[in-house]
Amino acid sequence: MPNYIGLDLGGTNIKAGIVDDAGTILTQTSVATPSQASVDALVDALANVCQTLANAANLPIDQVAAIGIGSPGAIDFENGIIKRSPNLPNFSDTPLAKLLRQKIGRPTYLENDANAAAFGEFWAGAGRDQAIKYMVMITLGTGIGGGIITNGKLVHGHAGFAGEIGHMIVQPHGRPGAAKTLGTLESYASAPHTAKRAREALEQSPNAEASALASILANTGTLTAKDVFDTAQTGDPIAAQVAEETAMYLAIACVNFCRILDPQMIVFAGGMIAAGDYLFSRIRAEFQALTWNVVPEHVQLVPAQLGNDAGFIGAAAVAHTQANP
Amino acid sequence: MPNYIGLDLGGTNIKAGIVDDAGTILTQTSVATPSQASVDALVDALANVCQTLANAANLPIDQVAAIGIGSPGAIDFENGIIKRSPNLPNFSDTPLAKLLRQKIGRPTYLENDANAAAFGEFWAGAGRDQAIKYMVMITLGTGIGGGIITNGKLVHGHAGFAGEIGHMIVQPHGRPGAAKTLGTLESYASAPHTAKRAREALEQSPNAEASALASILANTGTLTAKDVFDTAQTGDPIAAQVAEETAMYLAIACVNFCRILDPQMIVFAGGMIAAGDYLFSRIRAEFQALTWNVVPEHVQLVPAQLGNDAGFIGAAAVAHTQANP
Repeated sequence: MPNYIGLDLGGTNIKAGIVDDAGTILTQTSVATPSQASVDALVDALANVCQTLANAANLPIDQVAAIGIGSPGAIDFENGIIKRSPNLPNFSDTPLAKLLRQKIGRPTYLENDANAAAFGEFWAGAGRDQAIKYMVMITLGTGIGGGIITNGKLVHGHAGFAGEIGHMIVQPHGRPGAAKTLGTLESYASAPHTAKRAREALEQSPNAEASALASILANTGTLTAKDVFDTAQTGDPIAAQVAEETAMYLAIACVNFCRILDPQMIVFAGGMIAAGDYLFSRIRAEFQALTWNVVPEHVQLVPAQLGNDAGFIGAAAVAHTQANP
Repeated sequence: MPNYIGLDLGGTNIKAGIVDDAGTILTQTSVATPSQASVDALVDALANVCQTLANAANLPIDQVAAIGIGSPGAIDFENGIIKRSPNLPNFSDTPLAKLLRQKIGRPTYLENDANAAAFGEFWAGAGRDQAIKYMVMITLGTGIGGGIITNGKLVHGHAGFAGEIGHMIVQPHGRPGAAKTLGTLESYASAPHTAKRAREALEQSPNAEASALASILANTGTLTAKDVFDTAQTGDPIAAQVAEETAMYLAIACVNFCRILDPQMIVFAGGMIAAGDYLFSRIRAEFQALTWNVVPEHVQLVPAQLGNDAGFIGAAAVAHTQANP
């Protein structure tokens, strides 16, 4: 059975593994990213990771069918080039796929990290056992990212900017966000903006001192999104209101994905979902309240299954797909 | 050069033509749709249209490479079945593609009419001379419909409901619409809803009698979207405000298409755009005001080029694509 190496090139760590044709992990590893190193040194580090994996799997490197790399930053996936990446300051229009291919002698493909993670969930995670052809992944982290699959393929868009779903507008003339656009999904529903809205709600509420959020803020000097959701579950009205708004804006995004793309599955990844069922149950309830009544909704709103392994599994899946077009 | 017949099966007329491999129309015709007829009678009518076209082009019917049909209603495009169609009451799970193929002996494919029109613009209209792989079409009629193309292919979605962009949410808890969801694009920006918002604005404005819209309403007993846009151009403040809101909500939809799909081109079709440049220029201005600043926008917002021929040309394009996978 052909095997693929997936490399998830993060700012802190390179997570990597060998994955077979069926999406099963044979072996995996993680090493620190030499992010300040030269291009050559980073290519060497990636090659070493590949050799370490091959040794661990007792697999000659020339029997690895292909290698996939998931990387943050602006990627030219067709040509395997990292145009620029905030985490890799020495990289600028760097043909990383070609450089690693020259080093190792195996076909090598490059993909955006968010797309790779989405494709990992599609191939080997939440979408694995189902004949899914249309899927959206929403990653709720510091920002909100995404990946889109239509007709069984990743949607890159014309210039590689598809799936930037945190920058969708969900509230006309709404809150300021990171990139000029007002009222974006991220400016309401990311973890930092959920926490920020909670602080604002406390400031504006005449009953703020009755909220457990006020005590947390007083005791710890800060508020997190997890504080908001944990407190909302106890029935605290300010926390519940803020959490409900986060759920509502995420549900609006889901309704719009359904109207535009009609996916079978919307997969939620990232720390905010991993924190517990509460937010997820509220997103599902808001979605049912907001969606249309033309036909019953068939979309599944589900949590991601691969956790931090989605990136390298997805990079391997990209290699698998590119090598078997 | 292979030729294809495209049939646009509307509620009132069947528009049809023979189109060659390059998207050029060889001949075209239009006949009344026998919408109340039996399935057999309608298949006969479609077969007659095909024969009429073949005769006009001096082309033996067995030299037609394939036939495409665009139809309103719920379509199972993979199996060529009209599940139901409001305009064709005698059709229910009717395998129209198979029935026409049996009648004529040529490969026959069925597509949703909105998708067919979008694919027509993609193949032979606004997208024709460019290496477009990602396109969105917005049709502004009584309702708002659409068609989505990613990776060069129509996006149908899991159950054929992709592209229902009039039902996207653009205003949380906004105006009531046709299908339960509040604040949909259609409930703000369709022609009837634009006219309705103008009537509401007159009712609510203390200066209504100063608006030319009030005179039109008094003189004709009604207001149309065209009245609103024509009056807005003269600087009438109530009309301009209503028109600007229509443009803004359409621009929000465009921003969201760009963030989700990163298309090269968004094509506007339908009567509201054909009515003149004013609305279009306002949509473009609102889009530039609302979109992000991460990279300069490369998307083109353009009018459709094929008018009422888009449907049959697109049906022929579907036949071309299905017959040459």
